[in-house]
Amino acid sequence: MNTKKSSAPLLIGIDVGTTNIKALIFDPRGREIARAQAKTPTHHPQPEWAYYKPDELWKTVSNVLKDTVAQIDNPANIAGIATASIGETGVPIDRSGNPTGHAIAWFDQRTRPQREQLRKTFDRDELFSLTGLPLQPISSLCKILWIREHQPEAFARTATWLNTADYIAFRLSGIPATDYSLASRTLAFDLHRRQWANDILSELRLSPNLFAPLCNAGTDLGTILPNIARETGLPLHTRICAGGHDHICGALAVGVTEPGTMLNSLGTAEAMCLPISQPLTDPQIGRQNFTIGAHVAPDQYYFLGGLFTSGASIEWFRSLFGEDADYNTLISEASESPPGSLGVGFLPQLRFTNPPHAEAIARGTFIGLTPDANRGTLFRAILEGLSLEMRHIIDASKSHPGVPETKNIVAIGGGIRNQLLMQIKATVLNQPIALAEMDEATALGAAVLAGLGTGVYADITDALHTLDIPLQTIHPIPEQVVHYNRIYNRVHKQIYPAVQDLHHQIDQIQMTTVR
Amino acid sequence: MNTKKSSAPLLIGIDVGTTNIKALIFDPRGREIARAQAKTPTHHPQPEWAYYKPDELWKTVSNVLKDTVAQIDNPANIAGIATASIGETGVPIDRSGNPTGHAIAWFDQRTRPQREQLRKTFDRDELFSLTGLPLQPISSLCKILWIREHQPEAFARTATWLNTADYIAFRLSGIPATDYSLASRTLAFDLHRRQWANDILSELRLSPNLFAPLCNAGTDLGTILPNIARETGLPLHTRICAGGHDHICGALAVGVTEPGTMLNSLGTAEAMCLPISQPLTDPQIGRQNFTIGAHVAPDQYYFLGGLFTSGASIEWFRSLFGEDADYNTLISEASESPPGSLGVGFLPQLRFTNPPHAEAIARGTFIGLTPDANRGTLFRAILEGLSLEMRHIIDASKSHPGVPETKNIVAIGGGIRNQLLMQIKATVLNQPIALAEMDEATALGAAVLAGLGTGVYADITDALHTLDIPLQTIHPIPEQVVHYNRIYNRVHKQIYPAVQDLHHQIDQIQMTTVR
Repeated sequence: MNTKKSSAPLLIGIDVGTTNIKALIFDPRGREIARAQAKTPTHHPQPEWAYYKPDELWKTVSNVLKDTVAQIDNPANIAGIATASIGETGVPIDRSGNPTGHAIAWFDQRTRPQREQLRKTFDRDELFSLTGLPLQPISSLCKILWIREHQPEAFARTATWLNTADYIAFRLSGIPATDYSLASRTLAFDLHRRQWANDILSELRLSPNLFAPLCNAGTDLGTILPNIARETGLPLHTRICAGGHDHICGALAVGVTEPGTMLNSLGTAEAMCLPISQPLTDPQIGRQNFTIGAHVAPDQYYFLGGLFTSGASIEWFRSLFGEDADYNTLISEASESPPGSLGVGFLPQLRFTNPPHAEAIARGTFIGLTPDANRGTLFRAILEGLSLEMRHIIDASKSHPGVPETKNIVAIGGGIRNQLLMQIKATVLNQPIALAEMDEATALGAAVLAGLGTGVYADITDALHTLDIPLQTIHPIPEQVVHYNRIYNRVHKQIYPAVQDLHHQIDQIQMTTVR
Repeated sequence: MNTKKSSAPLLIGIDVGTTNIKALIFDPRGREIARAQAKTPTHHPQPEWAYYKPDELWKTVSNVLKDTVAQIDNPANIAGIATASIGETGVPIDRSGNPTGHAIAWFDQRTRPQREQLRKTFDRDELFSLTGLPLQPISSLCKILWIREHQPEAFARTATWLNTADYIAFRLSGIPATDYSLASRTLAFDLHRRQWANDILSELRLSPNLFAPLCNAGTDLGTILPNIARETGLPLHTRICAGGHDHICGALAVGVTEPGTMLNSLGTAEAMCLPISQPLTDPQIGRQNFTIGAHVAPDQYYFLGGLFTSGASIEWFRSLFGEDADYNTLISEASESPPGSLGVGFLPQLRFTNPPHAEAIARGTFIGLTPDANRGTLFRAILEGLSLEMRHIIDASKSHPGVPETKNIVAIGGGIRNQLLMQIKATVLNQPIALAEMDEATALGAAVLAGLGTGVYADITDALHTLDIPLQTIHPIPEQVVHYNRIYNRVHKQIYPAVQDLHHQIDQIQMTTVR
């Protein structure tokens, strides 16, 4: 690429995701110059548990940084770095900055007793109004309480809780800080005052200094530590900037920063995200498991509905078949199955329920199985189930006052490469979807934050004006709309209430006999 | 084998099953001398439809006969042949004995409108009291009405309806006849008078001569046709005897001919079968989809509960994985999953509901899916689902007056080779199960009928005294009994009612939009 030799400043976005860790180098127009990636090193000690070793996370980031920098001729042009990451995973560190334990994965389910403890301590509606979060076991606060209970010595040594992106910035710069978007996923952040919620911390006998100083996403934290610069090949002048929450960084990259557009971000987890100008506090929003959070765009907020096992459902199904089935094979087989998947339906809640369902715990379901259902039928049923469930989330979001009308949907993330999924989704929603014609919007969003911190962009308006991200619009297939409407109303929406009690019973039996 | 040169008479049992067609040669003690088998040639023109071409069926039987006879040194010792077959599949033939159409597979679902027609014409309780059968679309009568409606010319040429085993005997001997056990699966047989139910036939404007003359299973029909003897290598003196319904032939082979023992017959479909001395007529039995039929043992009857997609569920799952997964691999993987399959549950009703559920149409369901569920977990969930569903069938059977107490369970069929399945089943039922240490009880039962027809045995008592079938008893695992009790009561029994309405909706949507 001739851009490799350009003298324009370069920006690095790191994306620490559930499945992969990536480092990408972009030019100011958002064109990818280089990239490297590696699997996120994840440990699964028992069913429903998962954690990361902080040093392994850092080592993986350091390696992909080094690999990506090695690809370009002009590393001196690198101006800055920022990191986007998963939301509810944090690293506890001591006063010297050393980890005091593992980073419990955001989707780990060990913290359900801590959720119960919070339920008894707080009024969940008040908690939602203050923090924008419903009481879910995945929140950082539940993880902190779990560590205090099960690893008291490690907890006693813990000085600071850094979210994943914060921890990477800390390893790069030595500066502990948390941006508002990641702060708003902890259940310890006051959305209205934009500061840590000291009342919550004191009620739980947690130090008011447990969390790091707050700052805007894109804040320049300082230069890279010299030894890290040597290790990775980055120039000594590289600025390390505060990053943010992955889905929200992705929203920034495609300009979803103000009310009027819906972001559909497809990763291991999927989200629908609507920018809003003020936090919404209606307890019904929280009771339906929607969340309100702080955007990476200054003083903006968002309304978010998460579908927690989206790419994870696809990955789970693919993993059943080992090396035998790559995505393209499965997509091709699914294309041969008729709309409606011969009547097979799938509820994609392999770990948690999604909005508008009130419960935190759920499991997945296949209904309508027949001997005619082959692998492609089941895979199509998963793609349809994901699309139908996203429609359910979107439909429910519209029932809440204050949720803005949206004129269009922009989709980002690895999932948009699955054109069959996006075609089914456009038809199920009966609405065109604009796909960002670049599949690393999250990393680009982080790079944009680095560009804001280093002055490459004057502000967000300038950044969005400079970026050049083509969109491809995918349209519904009109003759299938009625069929999917029927399936949505008469079948899909009824699966969750039908199996909810069964899943509760299963959960109780598993709790008493297996764990 | 030295028995190959013995001068004892030899008996051939043919087993025409859903998946395989087999011909086995036995000595009078029931020891296998030779066998050959081939896939049952089945055509699937569209989802939910399946049929056999009668000439292909016959050709396959003829080939396996020839192959098995070629394996022995003394074919002249062969005394007779009888056939066991699937129950609800028949071949319509004209006056010259030529098929007038396909044989619709027993599990084909095209005949649902005909079932509705019968529902309007008859009182289902009276029909059950007379025939022992609930109104299910799979009955021969529904298939006959379908042919009359959709293939009127073929129907006009049809002189006789032969069940599958009847048709094989007809091709071998030229003699049309139906034994009582297969007659009692047609919905046109009066169980009490032991004759064709002329009132039903006349109400439907069907000829009173549509069905073949009735006889006891094991009746000597005549010698083999000379050209068939030449074709297959069978001696010209070979006697062709009336066979019977597969599960019931299997019951005969292991001595389940009188009240007191339960047969568990595991093929593509599975059945629990209890011999009774008189037909039971309580309509509640039929409303729960249990059936009453004529045994192959003279003047005996049985109470039967069918689990229609038992081996079919296992085969369906295996087929998703192509060559990658043989049964032993799947069983080995399932053994590594803990009892309860991490909470994954399976309702094994891929085509039809089983007793005690009242509906005829159903679909399968996986609940409790988590990302921790791997292929082995899902396969174990299928084995557990089959066992739990069989417990449900057995429990429900006990609620009906006249159903005899059973002291023990004898299991036969290909499924018993799956020791993990049988171990789970013994534990779920909390009862030992005796496995016949020979996996071709159905073919042996047919051979026993040939032995009765040819005088090798004086009567059934003599036959059972002569047969030497070792049994292996498999015991429950005591420490898992309570866990499976919980799963049975709190989860498994609730799956069907939870998803029943969903499956109705799916069915209606599929009917209106796809077919």
